[in-house]
Amino acid sequence: MNQDYIKPDNWSIIEEGFDVERVKSSESLFSIGNGAMGQRANFEESYSGETFQGSYIAGIYYPDKTKVGWWKNGYPEYFAKVLNAPNWIGIDIEINGENLDLHSCVSVRDFRRELNMKEGWYHRSFEATLQNGTEIAVNVKRFLSLNLDEVGIIHYEISPLNKDAKIVYKPYIDAGVTNEDANWEEKFWEPLEVKKGSNEAFVTAQTFKTHFKVTTFMHNSIWANGKNENISPVAIDASNEKIQHSYETVIGQGQTSTIQKIGGYTVSMNHANTQTAAENVIKLVLAKGYEALLEEQKVAWAKIWEMSDITIEGDVKAQQGIRFNIFQLNQTYLGKDSRLNIGPKGFTGEKYGGSTYWDTEAYCIPFYMATKDQEVARNLLTYRYNQLDKAIENAAKLGFTNGAALYPMVTMNGEECHNEWEITFEEIHRNGAIAFAIFNYFRFTGDYSYIPEKGLEVLIGIARFWHQRATFSTNKNKYVILGVTGPNEYENNVNNNFYTNYIAKWCIDYAAEQIQKVSLEYPSDHKRIIEKVNLSNAELQEWKKVADNMYFPQSEELGVYLQQDGFLDKELVRVADLDRSQRPINQKWSWDRILRSPYIKQADVLQCFYFFEDHFSKEQLKNNFEFYESFTVHESSLSPCVHSIQAAVLDKMEMAYTFYLRTSRLDLDDYNKEVEEGCHITSMAGTWMSIVEGFGGMRVKDNTLHFAPKIPKEWQGYSFKINFRNQIVKVTVNQKATQIALEGNNSITVMVHEKEVVLEANGLVNV
Amino acid sequence: MNQDYIKPDNWSIIEEGFDVERVKSSESLFSIGNGAMGQRANFEESYSGETFQGSYIAGIYYPDKTKVGWWKNGYPEYFAKVLNAPNWIGIDIEINGENLDLHSCVSVRDFRRELNMKEGWYHRSFEATLQNGTEIAVNVKRFLSLNLDEVGIIHYEISPLNKDAKIVYKPYIDAGVTNEDANWEEKFWEPLEVKKGSNEAFVTAQTFKTHFKVTTFMHNSIWANGKNENISPVAIDASNEKIQHSYETVIGQGQTSTIQKIGGYTVSMNHANTQTAAENVIKLVLAKGYEALLEEQKVAWAKIWEMSDITIEGDVKAQQGIRFNIFQLNQTYLGKDSRLNIGPKGFTGEKYGGSTYWDTEAYCIPFYMATKDQEVARNLLTYRYNQLDKAIENAAKLGFTNGAALYPMVTMNGEECHNEWEITFEEIHRNGAIAFAIFNYFRFTGDYSYIPEKGLEVLIGIARFWHQRATFSTNKNKYVILGVTGPNEYENNVNNNFYTNYIAKWCIDYAAEQIQKVSLEYPSDHKRIIEKVNLSNAELQEWKKVADNMYFPQSEELGVYLQQDGFLDKELVRVADLDRSQRPINQKWSWDRILRSPYIKQADVLQCFYFFEDHFSKEQLKNNFEFYESFTVHESSLSPCVHSIQAAVLDKMEMAYTFYLRTSRLDLDDYNKEVEEGCHITSMAGTWMSIVEGFGGMRVKDNTLHFAPKIPKEWQGYSFKINFRNQIVKVTVNQKATQIALEGNNSITVMVHEKEVVLEANGLVNV
Repeated sequence: MNQDYIKPDNWSIIEEGFDVERVKSSESLFSIGNGAMGQRANFEESYSGETFQGSYIAGIYYPDKTKVGWWKNGYPEYFAKVLNAPNWIGIDIEINGENLDLHSCVSVRDFRRELNMKEGWYHRSFEATLQNGTEIAVNVKRFLSLNLDEVGIIHYEISPLNKDAKIVYKPYIDAGVTNEDANWEEKFWEPLEVKKGSNEAFVTAQTFKTHFKVTTFMHNSIWANGKNENISPVAIDASNEKIQHSYETVIGQGQTSTIQKIGGYTVSMNHANTQTAAENVIKLVLAKGYEALLEEQKVAWAKIWEMSDITIEGDVKAQQGIRFNIFQLNQTYLGKDSRLNIGPKGFTGEKYGGSTYWDTEAYCIPFYMATKDQEVARNLLTYRYNQLDKAIENAAKLGFTNGAALYPMVTMNGEECHNEWEITFEEIHRNGAIAFAIFNYFRFTGDYSYIPEKGLEVLIGIARFWHQRATFSTNKNKYVILGVTGPNEYENNVNNNFYTNYIAKWCIDYAAEQIQKVSLEYPSDHKRIIEKVNLSNAELQEWKKVADNMYFPQSEELGVYLQQDGFLDKELVRVADLDRSQRPINQKWSWDRILRSPYIKQADVLQCFYFFEDHFSKEQLKNNFEFYESFTVHESSLSPCVHSIQAAVLDKMEMAYTFYLRTSRLDLDDYNKEVEEGCHITSMAGTWMSIVEGFGGMRVKDNTLHFAPKIPKEWQGYSFKINFRNQIVKVTVNQKATQIALEGNNSITVMVHEKEVVLEANGLVNV
Repeated sequence: MNQDYIKPDNWSIIEEGFDVERVKSSESLFSIGNGAMGQRANFEESYSGETFQGSYIAGIYYPDKTKVGWWKNGYPEYFAKVLNAPNWIGIDIEINGENLDLHSCVSVRDFRRELNMKEGWYHRSFEATLQNGTEIAVNVKRFLSLNLDEVGIIHYEISPLNKDAKIVYKPYIDAGVTNEDANWEEKFWEPLEVKKGSNEAFVTAQTFKTHFKVTTFMHNSIWANGKNENISPVAIDASNEKIQHSYETVIGQGQTSTIQKIGGYTVSMNHANTQTAAENVIKLVLAKGYEALLEEQKVAWAKIWEMSDITIEGDVKAQQGIRFNIFQLNQTYLGKDSRLNIGPKGFTGEKYGGSTYWDTEAYCIPFYMATKDQEVARNLLTYRYNQLDKAIENAAKLGFTNGAALYPMVTMNGEECHNEWEITFEEIHRNGAIAFAIFNYFRFTGDYSYIPEKGLEVLIGIARFWHQRATFSTNKNKYVILGVTGPNEYENNVNNNFYTNYIAKWCIDYAAEQIQKVSLEYPSDHKRIIEKVNLSNAELQEWKKVADNMYFPQSEELGVYLQQDGFLDKELVRVADLDRSQRPINQKWSWDRILRSPYIKQADVLQCFYFFEDHFSKEQLKNNFEFYESFTVHESSLSPCVHSIQAAVLDKMEMAYTFYLRTSRLDLDDYNKEVEEGCHITSMAGTWMSIVEGFGGMRVKDNTLHFAPKIPKEWQGYSFKINFRNQIVKVTVNQKATQIALEGNNSITVMVHEKEVVLEANGLVNV
């Protein structure tokens, strides 16, 4: 790990003490979000130290002109950037004539941050001595409402400690923001209108090129000496992109002055008139009031936790880790809107751009399926169905024909926007995960209707891609897939990546099976789809030839599949024998050295075993796990969770526990030295899998829930819930026993360690 | 081919007729240079159509901040750009109040360009009708002096054809120039001083960062109605980076007005005070006069042609092609200055940057060895010796130790400045060519002294690199070289590229042999070097283990070496069976499709056979040539020459001739649709090899010149000369016989078709 300053706590993320070196990391870790918008933990008052400003609105993006050194045919013109949205949180504060700035205060004491995950709010407090000698105590609470998801509220209190103070609050909203990752240092926002009211203001701006229109709004209320004085601003300064109100209060030593700022965004994706919508939202919030909204927030989060919480007893760091992960996932995506998806940094940073990679399908869907209504996962599938046309266009740009679909590496609207040939053109395994998610959704929910309605078209487009992408090797007398990058991105342009070949074959087989099944069970859908995509039996036969004759590299001698052709020609020095000073290799080594080394960012053979566990024996898993684990450096956030699950299957519980801690506290402990850029949101779903599928052994086979609970020796117990087809199954495990409880009115049978356990309605069984 | 507008002519490049679409291509083709500076064939007068302005000074460069989409460890901070130098040729011209601009004239007639290669000048003439109705005839001659290599002269004549004309000449010099390939649209030149004289002017500017100081100068003389009127300027306009004189003349219909502009550069690489140097140069030129300088120019070029000309009878296009190639090589590099090298575009464009790739060692040295004094080739070797420290630094940046040297892919000062991982880090075969050139220099010249003096240190640094770069494969029980890009850049990150493995082994063996030889024959040099580089016998043994156990991929069945591991897994559809509409594939296909195809930009197995011809049997050559030629698309300018030579060896004369035409007229006929960016200078040396080594069969074996003359059926005859160890051997071939003549005072024995032929002093033998 790289840091250890977060205080262990079951329900909160807590930082104590002010350290300028930690500001950017904490800005990531204490981020808040409500699925529709998000906010890094930037200070409301001005701060002249190192900071990374970030406010985000779900679904709003900018296509930034591609920047590359050497252009390749097929590169997209643009990279879809997650936009830093207009600032609504800012409150400049003058105290006795001095601007409050923690970076220039004479001293800062008792600085404390708390992100209360149980109730969904962020609190910051400190005492500071200004250069003019005024000592103050500050308390700030901030939250983004889950119920009114266009709104955030800031409750900011100041108490002068050693003298009376004239306090000038200057709350503002500002569309003059930029992205740190802008390719050409351009502005992404075009200001349209600034409108001022008495205690409220509105800045309407639109994104260049994409023309998303956003009204950023604020409403301010000021209290001094305990009562709402209904103060009006003494000044309003406005430019074409920013508006700032100034309120003066004078309060006595020891008394408290408060500003309550309501702010947020209304966007053209949801409203015809964003200005009017903003005015209505403010009215709604004022009618409810701060306390009521905060109470609603607690209730809303309680409801989320009721279903998704995982408890761990006897290991507070592990408990804090899993709750942080579950909390962030819920802050990022709540599944209400099929136009949205789960960006790699959620609302905690702008890096990587795009709203989705392959992470959603490979890692996030199981979490959302098991902790939400199935409609949420279905929305995530529908997101891809709605982008099928774009996926077909992406494939066409690379020379594929006949409706072959290649889902993008990174996207906002379905168009590929990544621009490294070895990724964009070659990391095509992503297409497999899109198909796997359809299979996984049906396996878990039993809802087949998605396939005839939407999924089958996606499966056909993907199967066509693989059919065309594989080529026949006369030499091997097999179909091969040349020139790919697997999930292990520490290899580029390799031939016959096992994972890619395997999932390609599986995609074709699965698509063919579903065509068959739909033809029998949904004949009118079958007819509609086959006509639409113009699929003949002859073409199906051609697909099958590829699937039936796919090449898989392997070593008989070692009893392992080979990550790719030629893997055994490397110098096979295990990670354990690699000098620690050489790690992380992605920071220490040049790219060629990484590529020719045996070291693995994320073990894709094992990823294949994870997806298709039933296709392989436990002995095969053991051989491959032990071989590939020894070369894996886990420099992908998506890596440790799979190893944790498989270590648990193989009864390597100490290893499983170590990987669990690594995945669950990746950001809290900053393993990869990069948390200041934002949190690794999508891998957090992998943490959930580590417990539920790893320690809990949860699987769905033949429409039945299976468990195989194990428990790390460090824990006294743990529990989790699964929403299985609208029946809630709660699993509680301690060192001695497992208890399975059903919250549902229909009896179901589950398997525990391969034995049938019948759960009566709302019943409970100890096993 | 892509164009066919150049008139066939034995000694000149001629264009007739004005076509705005051809302006940029002709600007490249009619470029002039004198080894120290160069100039695209931009018009002197202003031109509002599409143009690519280019003036260049040898050795002057700018390190442009790297632009990449995704940074990799080990990338250089800067790319060394060939600079567009200040403009010295510009002459704005007003005729009866209208600015002369061929793009806005009512008509342009009898437009003609001629690049007279025999005498080294460029001439342009045309008649035009201006919008104001004035008809004029214009004649312009321009050359860059070979003898005074800081100077160019323009002789610009105008005759009004239908009325008297007031002509205002506005010659200028301008440092406000930019590069089209600037990464960040920055200026590269910082103006320092503008100084005006009566008929002369000086702009001194320096390059940002590198601080090369350059004084650009001009001197103008005006004639009207036939006599030098010694006109003074009526106005002088100056800014901080540009100065422009205005001269007025009024001449009668049918008479001629002339401006003679002397211009050029004096640079801080050569002068402490560039301003004074410029003043002295102008004095020198004025003292000689235009006619005398033009006469000197003819003599100087005659001297170059005397040694380097190749004649071809009965095929004017072939004749024109080879002379164009020889002419451009001599315009680019004359071998006087070991700080200079041969840039890929010479002085004809800015693309690719850098002053050298691996082309110099692989392609250019044979031409310079055989047509110049051996000092010229030695200077090219010394260029690399002087950059050995930088090569060791380059290798260290990639993790190599112990004095291992990696010569850069592109450089100006020895530092790597390329930034694509698959090239910069992986196209390491370039290191082999540096060593091969040392071997080749000794083989041809017999001058061993270079090796103990300088070459051995280079060989040791290179051998150390290969020793460290190879890794042992337990699987193959051989040393392998993983993750490389060979000369065939249509494959990236492959394992065991045959060419790379072969030359790596050869480099180690050759270095070890030379260490042995120097220890015996130059013991004091041996001691000095071994101590300097700290080389032990134990280390030598380690090297040898790698060389003796290197792996070479091959197919017993096909009787060919394999370009790389896995080559036979591709879909082996020959170029002949590829739809023409798909070519050139680098413009039609996405990069992944190119990579997984079998198509070859430049066949590196055949390049290996070219370098090490004696190591292989003719049957092996035949098998490999026929196999790889069928997959080669020749989209590298460096490709056809090697195929031409090997086709000649294999008696495939029709093929050899086709490849000869392609290499010799690559730019004249614009095969690769890119001549407007500049000419392919380095591949022009390959054209020379096609005749001398291909048709002429010239080789040096055991200190003896060999020939094996063949002649394409399209030709009546051809001839070339070889400077072999200060004896000039002239070979004249026709359809019936070969004549070998010696210009030298010592009898020598040469081999013709493997038979000894004794040439007496200044004698001649028909064989």
